[in-house]
Amino acid sequence: MELGVIGLGRMGQIVVDRTLEAGHDVVAFDLEPEAVATAADAGAEPADSVADLVDRLGDDKCIWLMVPAGAAVDATLEELEGHLDEDDVVVDGGNSYFEDSVRRAESTPAAYLDCGTSGGPAGAHLGFSLMVGGPEWAYDELTPVFDAVATGPDGHERMGPAGSGHYVKMVHNGVEYALMQAYGEGFELLHEGRYDLDLESVASVWNNGAVIRSWLLELCEEAFREEGTDLGDVADRIEGGSTGTWTVQEGLEQEVPLPLIYTALGERFGSRADDGRFSRRLANRLRYGFGRHEVPRRE
Amino acid sequence: MELGVIGLGRMGQIVVDRTLEAGHDVVAFDLEPEAVATAADAGAEPADSVADLVDRLGDDKCIWLMVPAGAAVDATLEELEGHLDEDDVVVDGGNSYFEDSVRRAESTPAAYLDCGTSGGPAGAHLGFSLMVGGPEWAYDELTPVFDAVATGPDGHERMGPAGSGHYVKMVHNGVEYALMQAYGEGFELLHEGRYDLDLESVASVWNNGAVIRSWLLELCEEAFREEGTDLGDVADRIEGGSTGTWTVQEGLEQEVPLPLIYTALGERFGSRADDGRFSRRLANRLRYGFGRHEVPRRE
Amino acid sequence: MELGVIGLGRMGQIVVDRTLEAGHDVVAFDLEPEAVATAADAGAEPADSVADLVDRLGDDKCIWLMVPAGAAVDATLEELEGHLDEDDVVVDGGNSYFEDSVRRAESTPAAYLDCGTSGGPAGAHLGFSLMVGGPEWAYDELTPVFDAVATGPDGHERMGPAGSGHYVKMVHNGVEYALMQAYGEGFELLHEGRYDLDLESVASVWNNGAVIRSWLLELCEEAFREEGTDLGDVADRIEGGSTGTWTVQEGLEQEVPLPLIYTALGERFGSRADDGRFSRRLANRLRYGFGRHEVPRRE
Amino acid sequence: MELGVIGLGRMGQIVVDRTLEAGHDVVAFDLEPEAVATAADAGAEPADSVADLVDRLGDDKCIWLMVPAGAAVDATLEELEGHLDEDDVVVDGGNSYFEDSVRRAESTPAAYLDCGTSGGPAGAHLGFSLMVGGPEWAYDELTPVFDAVATGPDGHERMGPAGSGHYVKMVHNGVEYALMQAYGEGFELLHEGRYDLDLESVASVWNNGAVIRSWLLELCEEAFREEGTDLGDVADRIEGGSTGTWTVQEGLEQEVPLPLIYTALGERFGSRADDGRFSRRLANRLRYGFGRHEVPRRE
Repeated sequence: MELGVIGLGRMGQIVVDRTLEAGHDVVAFDLEPEAVATAADAGAEPADSVADLVDRLGDDKCIWLMVPAGAAVDATLEELEGHLDEDDVVVDGGNSYFEDSVRRAESTPAAYLDCGTSGGPAGAHLGFSLMVGGPEWAYDELTPVFDAVATGPDGHERMGPAGSGHYVKMVHNGVEYALMQAYGEGFELLHEGRYDLDLESVASVWNNGAVIRSWLLELCEEAFREEGTDLGDVADRIEGGSTGTWTVQEGLEQEVPLPLIYTALGERFGSRADDGRFSRRLANRLRYGFGRHEVPRRE
Repeated sequence: MELGVIGLGRMGQIVVDRTLEAGHDVVAFDLEPEAVATAADAGAEPADSVADLVDRLGDDKCIWLMVPAGAAVDATLEELEGHLDEDDVVVDGGNSYFEDSVRRAESTPAAYLDCGTSGGPAGAHLGFSLMVGGPEWAYDELTPVFDAVATGPDGHERMGPAGSGHYVKMVHNGVEYALMQAYGEGFELLHEGRYDLDLESVASVWNNGAVIRSWLLELCEEAFREEGTDLGDVADRIEGGSTGTWTVQEGLEQEVPLPLIYTALGERFGSRADDGRFSRRLANRLRYGFGRHEVPRRE
Repeated sequence: MELGVIGLGRMGQIVVDRTLEAGHDVVAFDLEPEAVATAADAGAEPADSVADLVDRLGDDKCIWLMVPAGAAVDATLEELEGHLDEDDVVVDGGNSYFEDSVRRAESTPAAYLDCGTSGGPAGAHLGFSLMVGGPEWAYDELTPVFDAVATGPDGHERMGPAGSGHYVKMVHNGVEYALMQAYGEGFELLHEGRYDLDLESVASVWNNGAVIRSWLLELCEEAFREEGTDLGDVADRIEGGSTGTWTVQEGLEQEVPLPLIYTALGERFGSRADDGRFSRRLANRLRYGFGRHEVPRRE
Repeated sequence: MELGVIGLGRMGQIVVDRTLEAGHDVVAFDLEPEAVATAADAGAEPADSVADLVDRLGDDKCIWLMVPAGAAVDATLEELEGHLDEDDVVVDGGNSYFEDSVRRAESTPAAYLDCGTSGGPAGAHLGFSLMVGGPEWAYDELTPVFDAVATGPDGHERMGPAGSGHYVKMVHNGVEYALMQAYGEGFELLHEGRYDLDLESVASVWNNGAVIRSWLLELCEEAFREEGTDLGDVADRIEGGSTGTWTVQEGLEQEVPLPLIYTALGERFGSRADDGRFSRRLANRLRYGFGRHEVPRRE
């Protein structure tokens, strides 16, 4: 089959490559001509605009968007608007907020599939995990592409109606924050604790048969192998947090407590408090207030 | 080589089976004659007491204890005491507290290896992950047995001196509590949330290529497959907690915050508050005190 | 001066009473005629509709709304709309969401003061703490009323522009959740712990000179005195949570971690999980999966 | 009556002063001669050694220890040992661990009262809150002294047998950590939030009638008044933590979850991680591993 791909960053390029490798045709566009050239080198037909990409696709167009979540998705959909009809299918493979996907599914003339994509750069070789929301017929139509982009037929599934793909991906990311923090606590304790341990070796033996083995733990093993058991000069300020924030907000909405995910998110926020945490500074002043403990001062 | 195994519960039996399958000889003892008979059926030489087991082993004895952590280990070591010398090796493969292992290593006449064992019943086929503490020569001597009982040569490693094997296993279990709770939060939100999702299908697609894929997530998939997407009649009172408690205590000792592990442990404690949480009951009375919110009463 | 009061529930009635006691005139209205009669008995001039109340007030009207947060405020403002001009002042003394107050301040023809009110029924005697947002001139104009309704001149303050009063009150309530939970944890530990303690006596001695003395701790003392040291038949399901939820949402927006407030809010959510916490039920099934721990089943 | 006081730091001096003011006699000793001189200036009879202090007291000696918790208490008791009999009473007014107090009560020849003391320097004027454990007759005998040192007869109470006084004080301190953190979260959100607020003014209006009013909130008000609304140069590294750690350990022992107290304690630990939190550094490396997010590096 034939797939148009808009957005040729690292992830979009992987979609192009895997789709081509599976024997399908790809028409590719990105605002960066170099990215289009890379896709063309891989075997895709280059397009020099969204309109051009649409023209090069036949009827019953299938278009995969792999652009940054937010305004870029809406801008692309706007450009596509006059060129789509109800037999076409648009896939949003980015990290969009699920309520945006519900809204876009309603306003887009084509069928709309929101597709949560997990696996990162490693997906280039293994394929991704794809969580898809939207109409069943559209999901069925895209199945050959999903088979190619995912790890295989087991690596994609229709979760439910519009928004459900990005909803499940949002929760996936919330869990991801908590898992990273859980491993981080364990390794922090081992690092600060009473034995002089080789953490790469710990991660390795855990990855061979232990209950907590996982892909993230393989990445821990890689981290200690490449950075050293004390993680060298890796700093502790953590950026990001949008999907975790959405997950916590949805927990508030559904009245489901998510203490681990919340705590993991809070670690990120706290890591960015460059002037020190106000709450801790107040605690120091209170400790003086009731106990005359000396107030530490900044130099 | 030749291995004595004391303690033939589910885990001890797997040690026997895997050691035999690797072509080694096993002498086996348990307080339950039936368990000894099972081991004998598998090819082990049966012993009818600890003393008898020791007699049947030659010089440079290697003995694997797989008895419940605590008093049973000390009782067994006491029975062994007169029969061991410094060329023998005792392995404690149970979930002992690491400070007990340090103490036992000092007081046992033989070399002592504390061996954290992870993998559960699935280890019967795959082999275990073994985290070993104690003298290097003893670890080397037992290597053929560790190769057999673990997933292979990568499935066991010497962590450091006495106690370090059970120390690393303790932290492993603390992390395990937090990982279970992290997945639990994600699935609880999906279960209570705004889409009607098939959680087995969610777990399955995540296990195929997603960042959070893991063995525990495979067990989640199995759980939903066997119990249904709403987990049927599984109750919510969680027993256990000793290794998690030890992990948190060690975090206090080392002044390392472990909020996720602590929270996961607290969920277990809280799940057993049969008369309701006192703190919540007080909150209800306070809400009446300052806001005249009606106090809910038990029937 | 003269004040119109709309909404004569427990809190509205206290506003009426304290304003009258300070020598001011009050015109009072409520949808419940009985509530109006009570206010009239106290010395207020009764009104039989919003329009009637407005008619009975002269120029430069001051009107205090004490109606439930949400739709009731908007409905009342709609009824008032044609009757107000820019020299009038409307006070919203309820627990409105601060963004609603910002919106209402923009759309209401009169000056608009959002007034967070704390102190509960005890405020009838002591007066309230009032956190006020809105135009300075309007705050100044209402000062005699605020002096009367608050504990006195120190019991009210203009926090800043529109919305700031309800914003500060929202955070006050978030802190309140955490304080209740903090005392709850302490008393729960004392209750479950190793001494047989009289908790009323503990609270009493703490309230006399201890660092943690507070009004909430006085309410704890009252709770144990009236319910007994084990809190009798008080149940543990906690209702409510809107202001706590708003506080956490604002923390997410501002990227400020609020782990204590979040945890206290989560206790409320968790207390309402009538069918058991899904996350705990999954943990039980996982413990079977990796360790063959028996799965507890509902009867 | 007559009281011996050993340990004349800030708190011990207050005990001396308040006991003298109530018309009792005091014999005072400290390792620092200057401290003894200060007590003598206030009207106490100076002693130049523990033995001398004992000699100056008659039969049925009452001795108040106000020395640092831990080794100093044991050392003082050892010095006292030969001089005490069963009609004497020793009070430990420090922050001793309750299990130490149980042990000391058993080994000391005199009656032993463990006396948790709260109120800090402010207690000089107001008197302290005293939580007392030990034999009833000894508590009764010391009542005149407790009346003087506490806020009055309501400011002291016998909690129960040996250890219970320090047990209740330990939990008091755990709650204190959580209360400080709860106020800290609220003020941090107000400080970082969307209004430009005067936090002294917020604390002041809350202290006048709001539900969350308390002595700690009065100390917050003082902090903002003296340091400014942004707390000036107060740093965010928080020392201390022993009583909080004991509280959490007891919670583990009793299987009572104390998430707020634990989190508040963890804030202290985390504030001292001078090289950055290891868990956060690992998270950064993992984010590179699965998402190629750039790894921040220390300069």
